[in-house]
Amino acid sequence: MFAGAQVSLYPMTDGFVGVIIDALGALDPWRDRLRIETDDISTLIVGPPEVLFPALRDLYVQAASTGVHVVLRCTLSRGCPGEPDDPICQSSALANPAEPLATRQERALARVATAAHLGQPADAQFSLYVMGAGDHMAEIMGCIAFLKDSGTFDRSKNFCTRLTGDAGPVFATLQQAFCQFGPPNGHVTIDLTVSANSPSKR
Amino acid sequence: MFAGAQVSLYPMTDGFVGVIIDALGALDPWRDRLRIETDDISTLIVGPPEVLFPALRDLYVQAASTGVHVVLRCTLSRGCPGEPDDPICQSSALANPAEPLATRQERALARVATAAHLGQPADAQFSLYVMGAGDHMAEIMGCIAFLKDSGTFDRSKNFCTRLTGDAGPVFATLQQAFCQFGPPNGHVTIDLTVSANSPSKR
Repeated sequence: MFAGAQVSLYPMTDGFVGVIIDALGALDPWRDRLRIETDDISTLIVGPPEVLFPALRDLYVQAASTGVHVVLRCTLSRGCPGEPDDPICQSSALANPAEPLATRQERALARVATAAHLGQPADAQFSLYVMGAGDHMAEIMGCIAFLKDSGTFDRSKNFCTRLTGDAGPVFATLQQAFCQFGPPNGHVTIDLTVSANSPSKR
Repeated sequence: MFAGAQVSLYPMTDGFVGVIIDALGALDPWRDRLRIETDDISTLIVGPPEVLFPALRDLYVQAASTGVHVVLRCTLSRGCPGEPDDPICQSSALANPAEPLATRQERALARVATAAHLGQPADAQFSLYVMGAGDHMAEIMGCIAFLKDSGTFDRSKNFCTRLTGDAGPVFATLQQAFCQFGPPNGHVTIDLTVSANSPSKR
């Protein structure tokens, strides 16, 4: 299996370079379990979902804590048939394919309920894509039902869903959406935007 | 059919609000053929691909012309089974399903070759997703073959493809990727990032 994300931070300030460089320190506790490569558009972070999502959460929290309007953007993927298996991505976080949707929804809700609160609000917007054989809309609708019960659901929009709340449960909800829906050996992606300190919300 | 995009502009400057508001003027020539709704995370633009892509191009060019490091981010979608048909989305730009991949690739290349140059460079990174029945990887690989011949191809990355060049042919390439690959009544999405004036490139 291959899993990871192309990640960008967009701080809306003249001092954007400093905000980005300072925030990268939040990845340090996770670096030995990830592979990280940067270019001028995004940073590739390769690793299993149970490391990837907490690392993204900590990166977001660090950048958002500056008080600057900042956006974290990610393209997340697991199981893309065009990518090679990678030992660093070995994961015990993906659902068992034999389990019915209801069992997976219950497990996802239980994990979100126990997520630690970090004191940093997060407004997230994301789309979940499930590719390949099988009824992809059944998995997406099953995920949306979980989201509505998660405690972080804000509202549905065209093409995407909004979550809001403390960054802890918001990123836990995203992790469960990525891991519990779609076949475990299937190709699942998320297009994610998380916004902090927007002046449009004041 | 329902088609459109959730669009955000991220100018990396203290004056980000002004850059965004000024750039929105570039949508004026297209507004009567689009439906536009804004919130604090993104702007929904609903309309057919042949209007949507030139409108996004003009929005990007206007923002990039300020010289500020600015990123345009979009989640594009057509044919999502969860969205209602909308007359404003009626399109003559989608490929005929009876046509073989090679014919669609040739048409896409011919359209990119005639795209007007606008004098504004664009570095784009995107993922194309094709959902539902059929061999989604065959359509994606067919699209990648077109991209490599398009004249705007930069390189493949994990989870996405980079394009570079003048904004005219770059957005024309994105439009053809969206319209010529995947079934015309299928669910096709693009996760798109376009970057201007990055200090990492200097």
